[in-house]
Amino acid sequence: MINVIKPRIEVCLSPALLHLYDTKGVTVIIIDVFRATSTIIAALHNGAKCVIPVASVAECIQLGNTIPNSITAGERDGKIAEGLQYGNSPSEYPKEFIKDKTLVLTTTNGTRLLHMVEGASEILIGSFLNLTAISDYLRKKNEPVLLGCASWKDRFNLEDTLFAGAVISRLQDTFDINCDSARAARHLHDSSGGNYIEFLKESSHYKRLSAYGLQADMAYCATADLHPIVPYLKGDRIVID
Amino acid sequence: MINVIKPRIEVCLSPALLHLYDTKGVTVIIIDVFRATSTIIAALHNGAKCVIPVASVAECIQLGNTIPNSITAGERDGKIAEGLQYGNSPSEYPKEFIKDKTLVLTTTNGTRLLHMVEGASEILIGSFLNLTAISDYLRKKNEPVLLGCASWKDRFNLEDTLFAGAVISRLQDTFDINCDSARAARHLHDSSGGNYIEFLKESSHYKRLSAYGLQADMAYCATADLHPIVPYLKGDRIVID
Repeated sequence: MINVIKPRIEVCLSPALLHLYDTKGVTVIIIDVFRATSTIIAALHNGAKCVIPVASVAECIQLGNTIPNSITAGERDGKIAEGLQYGNSPSEYPKEFIKDKTLVLTTTNGTRLLHMVEGASEILIGSFLNLTAISDYLRKKNEPVLLGCASWKDRFNLEDTLFAGAVISRLQDTFDINCDSARAARHLHDSSGGNYIEFLKESSHYKRLSAYGLQADMAYCATADLHPIVPYLKGDRIVID
Repeated sequence: MINVIKPRIEVCLSPALLHLYDTKGVTVIIIDVFRATSTIIAALHNGAKCVIPVASVAECIQLGNTIPNSITAGERDGKIAEGLQYGNSPSEYPKEFIKDKTLVLTTTNGTRLLHMVEGASEILIGSFLNLTAISDYLRKKNEPVLLGCASWKDRFNLEDTLFAGAVISRLQDTFDINCDSARAARHLHDSSGGNYIEFLKESSHYKRLSAYGLQADMAYCATADLHPIVPYLKGDRIVID
């Protein structure tokens, strides 16, 4: 019998817990299912040149003014933020619109987590839209993984954890799970029976965004494998190969 | 139809997330299943006069020296801490030994969380050992509740969250759940099928304590309703009525 040492896979449930994890040399997945990482993945798969995630509306406007063929996007309280052009919905970025453009996107939770991670070997962008693509990539890479849930204002949320559980359930044979967060995420995924949007209808975020009429948007975000790409951070930009 | 406003019930998954919750006027349950709150509940039900939780071994020794008929207890790395008399196992405190004594107990995770809570209307001690008693008490009291998981060095753990889920599942009809942590805890409880110790055998803490031969101890801690009491904090002491 050959003992193969498996790389570890862990789940960080909130940016407020990130300091508990060693991210040095680790492949970190940023997860913000509703809706930042879903929008980023859709825009890139539809041909965006790159996505530049920024924390503030002011920074978004300023970058938009300096980068040719760019658009600025972001929401606050479910509406397009004042001074920006577009929102935070994957459906706003079809191929005929976004192709070859630079999307400067301001989000709160996802961008913050992305900027907090230090020393990672690679930072990837994940959501249900690229579930299989990212799982296959991680399996092939065979190095330690941290699935980082952007959460909502540091509060645990169901949708990001459910996605982490979906990845765990696909990788549990090839990775070493010694992290109760990862185990809980996998149990949540089992509880969903793979029917993600139905499972998420009870979540706080679903209820919050439903008040803005965004049900179809969330159903899109919870659909597996619509955009089979693996976006990664390169400098200050998110790109695909 | 009469609309009854239900009090809220929330779950804090780690002391590192406590600042996200408003504890003013809230009934807070301290949960440290393996094993601090289980030991406290067992000792009190078996007749201990009170339990004084302290953070450090030095403080434990000092208090033990000044309080008549007291015993000092606490573990570090699975062994009785140097200078103390007893450990952190509920089985060490049968009636014939602990009756009328003051138990000065040093624990790390549980005590820390207990001292962090501010402005609570009441601080209670929970574990599977008093699951029904504490659930019934909360239902009757009918005020906002925060279930606080002591976790392990701020890391999410399965056993405390599972207990929170057990309470939620009993109170979901009489409380308002608008907290994804509470929903996740309830799902975890559903996944366990009520077979707590089997479910917890995969947890990090079970594996860690198994290395010290503490399996029977953990099975005891995961048994529902062995000690149907509701301990609460009164000044610096944990007591029952």
